[in-house]
Amino acid sequence: MYSHAFLSLRTPSPATSLPELKSDKLQTLGKWRSNFTVTVTSACTQRVVLVLHELGVEYDFIAVALMKGEHKDTSYTQDVHPFGRIPTLKDGNFQLFESRAICRYLVSKFGGTSTLNSDKQADAVQIGTLEQAISIEYSYFDPQIKALCYENVFKGYLGKGAASPDEVEKATDILTTCLDYYEALLSKQDYLTGNEFGLVDIFVMPWLPWFHVLKMDDLISGRPKFESWWKRMTARRSWQLVQESLPKTG
Amino acid sequence: MYSHAFLSLRTPSPATSLPELKSDKLQTLGKWRSNFTVTVTSACTQRVVLVLHELGVEYDFIAVALMKGEHKDTSYTQDVHPFGRIPTLKDGNFQLFESRAICRYLVSKFGGTSTLNSDKQADAVQIGTLEQAISIEYSYFDPQIKALCYENVFKGYLGKGAASPDEVEKATDILTTCLDYYEALLSKQDYLTGNEFGLVDIFVMPWLPWFHVLKMDDLISGRPKFESWWKRMTARRSWQLVQESLPKTG
Repeated sequence: MYSHAFLSLRTPSPATSLPELKSDKLQTLGKWRSNFTVTVTSACTQRVVLVLHELGVEYDFIAVALMKGEHKDTSYTQDVHPFGRIPTLKDGNFQLFESRAICRYLVSKFGGTSTLNSDKQADAVQIGTLEQAISIEYSYFDPQIKALCYENVFKGYLGKGAASPDEVEKATDILTTCLDYYEALLSKQDYLTGNEFGLVDIFVMPWLPWFHVLKMDDLISGRPKFESWWKRMTARRSWQLVQESLPKTG
Repeated sequence: MYSHAFLSLRTPSPATSLPELKSDKLQTLGKWRSNFTVTVTSACTQRVVLVLHELGVEYDFIAVALMKGEHKDTSYTQDVHPFGRIPTLKDGNFQLFESRAICRYLVSKFGGTSTLNSDKQADAVQIGTLEQAISIEYSYFDPQIKALCYENVFKGYLGKGAASPDEVEKATDILTTCLDYYEALLSKQDYLTGNEFGLVDIFVMPWLPWFHVLKMDDLISGRPKFESWWKRMTARRSWQLVQESLPKTG
């Protein structure tokens, strides 16, 4: 299982042409309808790649062999990521890890007039509201969908036994509350942070196909506003470029 | 078990006098050396209160009876916090939840020339570095110390059985890596985000006494730079005010 650990920027300024992603040996886990494929490429890496595409910044992938444990090698933990995770970003001599931090760095450096670049000149209420939305994604959405993937998919692959009913119930409860919150929010505004496409929309996007893998499509189809938002997200060119460029082996 | 759910600002501008915190029925879980007491007051609430003290902003507590489930009442989840958690902040007509978001709102509104107010006018590298530090605290420090408290302390109180050795081992491993990272960082700089006291220092602070409760003091005493940082944190007036004002029943 390969994934993308380094994202090395090709140019110090936004480029107009979009790069081909390098194809490597990613395993396909499932298909969602007819038009996109779920792979094990890390959601955190996809998050950063979506921002790169949205901003039109060229980059190269440097793959790290997770299954061989390269991300736990001393050379990796000493020089690249002290916690042995992916992705990391290299921009000239500057290195950064943590996907959301990388996204905010990219937006600050290359965001220009993009709607992603919303916190420049913001007042306290706007900052508080943006940070609240980011924290909701981080606290209630991401950990729960990740836990459900681990319990229901990865545990089996890793030979770690059956899903824990308690963990599945706990994660499902909080995720459902979060989707209810998003549904109510999206009845008042077009995107998760307001009426403009923003970073939190991108933070959530990589997890969308997993609802199908987890056989939880009804959590989406039962919420018309969220489903409409989802369709708008998957119609974005950045989403399509990421999906098309992911290797399809299944 | 009472805790603090609302923090309602008293004044729209910084005040010079510091408020008395209202005493309520918090349960003392342990003592750390002779000079402070650990209570079940939520670490997230303490995080916000530390910022209020640092900035000299007056506020009132409105307690919510967690053990009676008031935070799960429909009136609370509809009007105050959709996920039924604490703390929340009320500043005039503006309401906000998520402790780190509240802290950033307060810093933006009342921070002035405080070193906490570091992201105004910051460049991309400074923003990326700050967001990385915030994400490290959120990803590797907070969830692990929280998991250890749950496994080793709260499970017993809640009648949920013994700690899971797997969970304890996993959390201890990541927490240890995080403390190693902090130790290396603090050999190069005075605080967790640079040479000035910053928000990440505050985000970590409320967990400090729990190392003793968890009988993990050696994780601190074995790391001289981190221990020195810890001593500087607990010497701050904001820390002392929070500790002194917490009800002591044990």
